[in-house]
Amino acid sequence: MLQQQKIIMASVGEVMINKQVILKHFINTAPKESDMVVKTSSLSLKVEPGSNAVVVKNLYLSCDPFMGSRMKKFENPDFNSFIPGSPLEGIGVAKVLDSGHLDFKKGNLVWGTVGWEEYGVVENPENLFKIHHTDVPLSYYTGILGMPGITAWAGFYKVAAPKKGEYVFVSAAAGAVGQLVGQFAKLMGCYVVGSAGSKEKVEILKNKLGFDDAFNYKEEHDLDAALKRCFPEGIDIYFDNVGGKILDAVLLNMRIKGRIVVCGMISQYYLRQPEGVRNLLNIVIKRVRIEGFVVVDYVPQYSKFLEVVLPLIREGKIVYLEDITEGLENAPAALVGLFNGRNIGKQIVLVARE
Amino acid sequence: MLQQQKIIMASVGEVMINKQVILKHFINTAPKESDMVVKTSSLSLKVEPGSNAVVVKNLYLSCDPFMGSRMKKFENPDFNSFIPGSPLEGIGVAKVLDSGHLDFKKGNLVWGTVGWEEYGVVENPENLFKIHHTDVPLSYYTGILGMPGITAWAGFYKVAAPKKGEYVFVSAAAGAVGQLVGQFAKLMGCYVVGSAGSKEKVEILKNKLGFDDAFNYKEEHDLDAALKRCFPEGIDIYFDNVGGKILDAVLLNMRIKGRIVVCGMISQYYLRQPEGVRNLLNIVIKRVRIEGFVVVDYVPQYSKFLEVVLPLIREGKIVYLEDITEGLENAPAALVGLFNGRNIGKQIVLVARE
Repeated sequence: MLQQQKIIMASVGEVMINKQVILKHFINTAPKESDMVVKTSSLSLKVEPGSNAVVVKNLYLSCDPFMGSRMKKFENPDFNSFIPGSPLEGIGVAKVLDSGHLDFKKGNLVWGTVGWEEYGVVENPENLFKIHHTDVPLSYYTGILGMPGITAWAGFYKVAAPKKGEYVFVSAAAGAVGQLVGQFAKLMGCYVVGSAGSKEKVEILKNKLGFDDAFNYKEEHDLDAALKRCFPEGIDIYFDNVGGKILDAVLLNMRIKGRIVVCGMISQYYLRQPEGVRNLLNIVIKRVRIEGFVVVDYVPQYSKFLEVVLPLIREGKIVYLEDITEGLENAPAALVGLFNGRNIGKQIVLVARE
Repeated sequence: MLQQQKIIMASVGEVMINKQVILKHFINTAPKESDMVVKTSSLSLKVEPGSNAVVVKNLYLSCDPFMGSRMKKFENPDFNSFIPGSPLEGIGVAKVLDSGHLDFKKGNLVWGTVGWEEYGVVENPENLFKIHHTDVPLSYYTGILGMPGITAWAGFYKVAAPKKGEYVFVSAAAGAVGQLVGQFAKLMGCYVVGSAGSKEKVEILKNKLGFDDAFNYKEEHDLDAALKRCFPEGIDIYFDNVGGKILDAVLLNMRIKGRIVVCGMISQYYLRQPEGVRNLLNIVIKRVRIEGFVVVDYVPQYSKFLEVVLPLIREGKIVYLEDITEGLENAPAALVGLFNGRNIGKQIVLVARE
């Protein structure tokens, strides 16, 4: 069958069997493996004549919480839902196999939005970033050198406006973004505490990532007390990845002119009704600023970001934990694990080695 | 009796019978008239030799929501509770009768923190503001030219960072601060809607204060729907005096990069447990900034504020609604009315005419 296809499609180039992760249907809860199916189809590896597209071979795919949101039928103009019957989309690192676009040529390494598949056609390659620095792991472009990196950098340096010596709390601190926020804060001379969902993660925060302290929120029946224990002087900056109960407890512990940077609220995404946050009066009493942000607003500053972070990686001043799952067929499980807190560090799927 | 006292105290000057509003006990709910008692005592109208104090005759006393908070036994270092058995304190306009302080002399008009009494001794007169402009009503120094004025000015211009043409929503819009925020926003070319708690207030907002629209929150069983009706394009700036349910509904209607300036949350002050606010995820989705502020941080900019607002008053570009209760004996009822929304505009007690 493949041979036949190869012959038939000869005029547009080699045709490859292409494994894809397909969304079966819209979801209303956190994603389950059964919401996706891995299928094979075929794809020509040549760009169609006259097209600006590029054909890529995917190397790494990033598992991100926003992908769960895109599996919902979402009516918000800021989000596009995935399409049932089509492959999921996410951030990936890929190699250009063929290009109809002047800026890209065969062999270029890129990162950006790609399909969850082994090979794919990127119709708007101008949205891809070319990878110029390959002395660092390529997978880093899904993490510390990609969206989670810009997110942590923008949220901490641009939104939180940190000062040396401030008290910083990070939730989901062993995750793709949290681990970087904590390390940025330490580099700035802040006192940093993280929360995470397992003993193992807490050990990693304290022993590998340089956090001053950390706690397992699942073992704390009184989050307010846990925060008071870790921050007897109160919190200047809370980098919120979680929302809900932990945000409510943080509000009781903010210092005057404190800032709460809201990056995400993963605890709230799949509740039938979001939890009520009761301690907002502290916003007035303590003159607190709560500010949400999205990374796309900071993507134009990507090269400036690289100038800061690449040297930190090369000089060993910052480390990045990755949780790499091998094989596209295991991608659904890897994505689902994200919503159970199974991953330690940035969850990535290795699709193919370069 | 008064004659006798006058003779005995002759060496330190004239002694006057002094009516005072005394806090009877700490409270846990909104203030009631029975939490206060009006008593008379006597006071020498001469400053004691060697003292820096000034003796004042109070002309106007301001009723402010924060006074209810100070009637609670409050453990927060930012607040001092009133003392049971002593007069309440608040902002007032007063005339200096005698002064031990170089900066003040007999006949000066001042505003600042005074006791709830007819005559009083101000031990730290350096915290009083001298009134230099008397071509405007003196009562204005409890309102548009005093703390509510600086509050509205700072909250709107400094915290909300408004732009021409933006959509502005103000709660408690007929109150001391809200009416000014709405007028500042109109002067800036914004579209302004206010909420208030009676039909009469809504009419005043629309017909006297120049709001584009207004609604009675007590008649809206669906606040989200009311906001969608008034703001089909969404809200850029919400000036929050109320908190709770209306804040929650506003969060569903914020525009991208919207700002919520939290001035107060009067709906929450006396609840056994504050209401839960459920729609905070919109902070991320819409990149919303929520920021609390307190007026004391902006008091150093008072003269700059006067330069802006005095001309607006003189040129008739801004109006200020006052609700004036006559007589110190009626002050407890006036203060209590504030928490029932009885006042229309700034609630003031006229203690004495100059």
